[in-house]
Amino acid sequence: MADYTKMWKSLGIDIENHNALLAGLGQAYTDIFLSQKNRPEGMKYFDFVMSEVHGLRIKEIVDAKAEGRKVIGSYCVFVPEELVLAVDGVAIGLCAGAELGFEAAEALLPRNTCSLIKSMFGFKLGKLCPYVESCDVIVGENTCDGKKKAYEIFRPLVKDLYVMDLPQTKSETGRMVLKEEYRKFIAKLEKESGKKITVQSLRKGIEIVNAKRKAMIRLAAVRAADPAPISGLDALLINQVFFHDDPVRFTDSVNKLCDELEQRVKDHKGVFPKGTTRVIVSGCPMAVPNWKLPMIIETSNAVIVGEESCVGERGTRWLTDIKGNTVEELLDAITDRYFNVDCAVFTPNPSRVSHVKDMVKKLHADGVIHYSLQFCQPYIIESGPVEKELEKSHIPTLRLETDYSQEDAGQLKTRIEAFNERLKKK
Amino acid sequence: MADYTKMWKSLGIDIENHNALLAGLGQAYTDIFLSQKNRPEGMKYFDFVMSEVHGLRIKEIVDAKAEGRKVIGSYCVFVPEELVLAVDGVAIGLCAGAELGFEAAEALLPRNTCSLIKSMFGFKLGKLCPYVESCDVIVGENTCDGKKKAYEIFRPLVKDLYVMDLPQTKSETGRMVLKEEYRKFIAKLEKESGKKITVQSLRKGIEIVNAKRKAMIRLAAVRAADPAPISGLDALLINQVFFHDDPVRFTDSVNKLCDELEQRVKDHKGVFPKGTTRVIVSGCPMAVPNWKLPMIIETSNAVIVGEESCVGERGTRWLTDIKGNTVEELLDAITDRYFNVDCAVFTPNPSRVSHVKDMVKKLHADGVIHYSLQFCQPYIIESGPVEKELEKSHIPTLRLETDYSQEDAGQLKTRIEAFNERLKKK
Ligand code: SF4
Ligand code: SF4
Ligand code: SF4
Ligand code: SF4
Repeated sequence: MADYTKMWKSLGIDIENHNALLAGLGQAYTDIFLSQKNRPEGMKYFDFVMSEVHGLRIKEIVDAKAEGRKVIGSYCVFVPEELVLAVDGVAIGLCAGAELGFEAAEALLPRNTCSLIKSMFGFKLGKLCPYVESCDVIVGENTCDGKKKAYEIFRPLVKDLYVMDLPQTKSETGRMVLKEEYRKFIAKLEKESGKKITVQSLRKGIEIVNAKRKAMIRLAAVRAADPAPISGLDALLINQVFFHDDPVRFTDSVNKLCDELEQRVKDHKGVFPKGTTRVIVSGCPMAVPNWKLPMIIETSNAVIVGEESCVGERGTRWLTDIKGNTVEELLDAITDRYFNVDCAVFTPNPSRVSHVKDMVKKLHADGVIHYSLQFCQPYIIESGPVEKELEKSHIPTLRLETDYSQEDAGQLKTRIEAFNERLKKK
Repeated sequence: MADYTKMWKSLGIDIENHNALLAGLGQAYTDIFLSQKNRPEGMKYFDFVMSEVHGLRIKEIVDAKAEGRKVIGSYCVFVPEELVLAVDGVAIGLCAGAELGFEAAEALLPRNTCSLIKSMFGFKLGKLCPYVESCDVIVGENTCDGKKKAYEIFRPLVKDLYVMDLPQTKSETGRMVLKEEYRKFIAKLEKESGKKITVQSLRKGIEIVNAKRKAMIRLAAVRAADPAPISGLDALLINQVFFHDDPVRFTDSVNKLCDELEQRVKDHKGVFPKGTTRVIVSGCPMAVPNWKLPMIIETSNAVIVGEESCVGERGTRWLTDIKGNTVEELLDAITDRYFNVDCAVFTPNPSRVSHVKDMVKKLHADGVIHYSLQFCQPYIIESGPVEKELEKSHIPTLRLETDYSQEDAGQLKTRIEAFNERLKKK
C-alpha cells in the first residue's frame, strides 16, 4: 500500500489513532472476509477497494476536489445521489460502524444514543475518517429523534452542515414536503458547485444511479439459489461499498460479479452446502466495519440470503423513472422513487413488513432475524408488530438488539444458534 | 364520596385495580399536598377536584355524552382544545403519571420506552382510567419517535384513534403542515359530532381557552414574588387539572386563587420563608400523579417558581388572536398560536432556552433543574445544549433523568440538596 500519510495529514486526520483504526480494520477484514471459503473471484475487486478504502479512494476524492468537484456526505438513503451527480459532485455515505471515539461522543450525547450516532460523533471528534474530512457539505436529515436532535450538536463540529427536513407520513402532504426539500437541496447544490442542474445532467445522474441499483437488484436476485452463490457477509460488504465507491466502476464490478454468480448457480456451486439454513436480516443499517451479526450468523450454520435494510434492499430496490422531459418532471420522479423508502421513521409503515415477506418467499428463506441497534426507537418499536405479522405468516422470527461492542457476541451466538436449530427443524 | 362503582363498571373499568389506584392516589395526595404549610385557601377547589377526579368530573363527562357531546382525548398540547370546543366537545388530556400496568405495557413496547408512553399503555391495558374509557376519539400525534411508533401498537386497543401528523421544523412548510393537519382535524371533529364549526362557535372556543390560559399566565406572574405565594407543587397541580377540568369553572377558580395570591404578595405572605432558594423546572411534562420531583425539591429547602413544560408555561403562555372574521382566519390564528410551542421534537428549537432564561429573570430564580424522562431522546439530547447555554449565562443548571419509579428518590434527593446548596452560596 502506498504511503498516504501526507494526504491524511493535509485532511486533518489524527495519524496515530487512524493507524490504529486501519490496523484493526485490516485484521478484522482478514479474519472475517478473507477466511471465508469458496468466495467468488469477483470479490477480489471489493477486497481491493477495502484495502484502499482510506487510500486510493480518498486520493480520487481529493483529486476530484482539486478539479473543482464538490464532495457531499450524508447519513441516510433519503439524500439523493442523483442530485449530487447532476452538479458533477461526489456523493459519499458517511455512516460509521465502529465503536471508536465513544467516550468523546458521550461527552456531547446521552449514553442512551444508538451506536450509529455515537460513531458519527466519534469518528468526527477523533479525526478518524478521511471521508468526513473531505466533505464540502455534510447533509443531515430529520429522520429519527436521535439524529434529528444530534445534528444540532454536530453542527458546530463540521464546516457546513445542511439539514434536510423529512416527512413522517406517506401522505400527500408528506410527498410535498419531500419534494420541496429536494428542491431546496438542489438550490444548495447549485450554489455550492456553481453549476445549474439541467435535464441532461439530471438524467445522466439518474442513469448512473439506476444502473448501480439495477446491478444490486441483480445481485439480490441471484441469491435465491440454493446453494447460495455468495455469502451474506460478502453481499453486505458490497452494499456497504455502494456508499463510497465510484458509482460507474462499482456498477461494472457488481455486474461482473453477477456474471460469475449466475454461472455458479447454473453449476450448482455455492459458498455453503446446499440445504444450509437460510435467513433474511431485517432492520437497522449496518455500516463498515459493523460485521458482527452476519459474521456470527454465518459461522452458526446459516447463510444470509438477503438484507432488508438501508444497507441492502431498502436502499437499492426502486429505480427512478427517466421519462421526464423537464427538471421538474425528473424531480417528481426522484421524489416518487425515494418516497417508497420504508424506513421505520414513517408511520404507519406497512410496506416494510410486506417486503420482508416477499423477500422470504423469493429468496426461499427459512426465517428472519430482526436487527435493531440499541436505543433505536423507530426500529425497536416496529420490531414487535413486524415479528407478530411474520410469525402469523409462519415465518420464524428472532428479534435482536445489539450495539457496536463485542461484549454480547457470545450471548448473540447462543441465541442465533438456537434460532437456526429451530429453523432446521421446520 | 359518592359511590361511583356503577358508573365505572359501565365504562368498563377494572374495579379492583381501580380501587387500589384511588386508595394510593388519595394517600399520596394527603402526604404530599395536604401536608404542606401555609397553603392558599383557593387550593380547596383543586383539592376537591382531585378528590373527585374519577368521580364527579367523570359523571359530568358521562352526562355530557348522554347529551350527545363528544369526548376527545389527547396526549399532547398540539391538539387544540379550541377546535374541540367549537363542536361543543369535551377535551381531555389523557397523559398518565403513574407506574401502573407497566408489565402489560412492556409486553407490547420495548423496555427502553419513556414512562409517559408506558403509562399510557398501562392505564389502557389495566382498564384504570375512566377518562380514557369515556373517549369517543383519542387523538395521537407524530411528535417523538416513541409516541409516533407506539400509536401504531395502541390503535387496536382503542375504539377510535385519530393520529395527527406534526411538522419537525418551524419552517414555512412546517406551518403549512400544521395548518393542514388542523383542517383535517376539524373535518374529523365535524364528522364525529355532526356539528359544523362556525365563526361564532370557533370564536367562542378560542375565548374560553384564551381565558383559561390568561388565568394561568396570571398565576405564573404572581410567583415572581418573594416569598412565593404558592408552592410549586400546588402550581403544578393546577397545571395538571388544566387538562381535565371544565374549562370555564377552572378559569374562575384559578382567577379567584390569583386574587388571593396577589393579596398575599401585598401582605408579603408566602408558603416558604422569604429568601428561600428559587428554582425553575424545565423539561418533559409531568402528568398526574407524577409529583416525585417537585416533592423532593420542595422538601429540600427550595421552592419551584415556574415550570417550563407542556404542563406549565410551554402549554399556557400564548393566546390565540381572536380578530379573524372567517373560520379560515381563525384557523390561521390557531395555527400561529400553536406553532409557537417550543417542544424539543422541533429542530432547531432555540426559543425554548430563551424562554427558560426569561423565566429565570422574571421569576427571580436562582437556578434551573432540567427534568427528562428516561429514554426521552428529544429532551435528553436537547438538555446538553440547554445546560451549556444556561451556564454560559451564569444560570446554574442541574440535569436529571428519571422515571415513574420511586427507586431513585434517595439519589435524586442527594443531588438536589447538593444543587440547592450550590444555589444558596451564589
Ligand atoms: S434507516 Fe431510516 S434514517 Fe436510517 S438511513 Fe435508512 S431511511 Fe435513513
Ligand atoms: S439506527 Fe435508529 S436511532 Fe440510530 S440513526 Fe438509525 S434510525 Fe436513528
Ligand atoms: S413535550 Fe412535546 S410531545 Fe409532549 S405534550 Fe409537549 S408538545 Fe406534545
Ligand atoms: S417524554 Fe419524551 S419520549 Fe416520552 S412521550 Fe414525551 S416527548 Fe415522547
